[in-house]
Amino acid sequence: MKAANLGSPLRVLGVDPGLTRCGVGVVEASGPRRVSAVHFDVVRTPADAELADRLSHLYDELTTLVARHRPDVVAVERVFSQHNVRTVMGTAQAAGIAVLVAKQAGIDVAMHTPTEVKASITGSGSADKDQVGTMVTRLLGLSERPKPADCADALALAICHLWRGTAQRRLAQALAAGRPA
Amino acid sequence: MKAANLGSPLRVLGVDPGLTRCGVGVVEASGPRRVSAVHFDVVRTPADAELADRLSHLYDELTTLVARHRPDVVAVERVFSQHNVRTVMGTAQAAGIAVLVAKQAGIDVAMHTPTEVKASITGSGSADKDQVGTMVTRLLGLSERPKPADCADALALAICHLWRGTAQRRLAQALAAGRPA
Repeated sequence: MKAANLGSPLRVLGVDPGLTRCGVGVVEASGPRRVSAVHFDVVRTPADAELADRLSHLYDELTTLVARHRPDVVAVERVFSQHNVRTVMGTAQAAGIAVLVAKQAGIDVAMHTPTEVKASITGSGSADKDQVGTMVTRLLGLSERPKPADCADALALAICHLWRGTAQRRLAQALAAGRPA
Repeated sequence: MKAANLGSPLRVLGVDPGLTRCGVGVVEASGPRRVSAVHFDVVRTPADAELADRLSHLYDELTTLVARHRPDVVAVERVFSQHNVRTVMGTAQAAGIAVLVAKQAGIDVAMHTPTEVKASITGSGSADKDQVGTMVTRLLGLSERPKPADCADALALAICHLWRGTAQRRLAQALAAGRPA
């Protein structure tokens, strides 16, 4: 069953925010509980670069990505306090850039917590990275695990969004309307 | 002595980052230790608005401000951990937007800590907001204190930048080169 069979297949860009490594993953719903990976990558900026250069590079890369893949939704990990205050600042700023880029492209933004993502993908909100990586690989039917882990996390976010909320409802509506899926 | 007397008067936009209230203040160096206020304001976004709308509004307002006042430098408060984790996220994201806007406009970015700003303006790194507000009013020769406090803090940041580092050196060079100041 191909994605094209759905009137408007749902395409989600998941963003695992970070300045040093920002994971991005585009996933498409190709049917109920069926997902396929369109693209995944990591946007990197050098830790010793100026903050202005890092944020600007991330903005440009995400803008290009959004223009190229035209997701219906951008799902960003909701940042919480972490151990390292310095890290959390960069993570919050990277998340802010992703949200801004989506808004400027007229794309809806959704945020999901790490616990929501893990629970959605593995059935347990306390799953470890390894488990998430394994499930992402399996759900997307990939031949090998996306690396680095930031890619897998971004793909997991996108899948989580497709499994939940609005996307889920839209899919249900499309199916109820009798469109083949 | 007018700012125009300096070959290239230094104009700094200070940004006191925040999502609910983001203080902005444009200050010009009109001679050694002489500063004048060009503009100050507060960019507000409703606390109950979507994050995407808040960041996008701030981006647009700061972009307009930078285009209108063409500062040589944008000075942003360096965000540290605060008591409220929720607040610090928004502050970090607002600071990130300010840095991005400056970079996209080709303007240098400087960051100063609250302690540096207070020490620069009042002589004490532990000065309170009231003292900062009083000194900003006095240094800029304003008839009344800029309100809300976010405006005064943004102006203080801009003055701090003019008193320090690169700006200070450029001013010294201009004076050494014999240009009247």
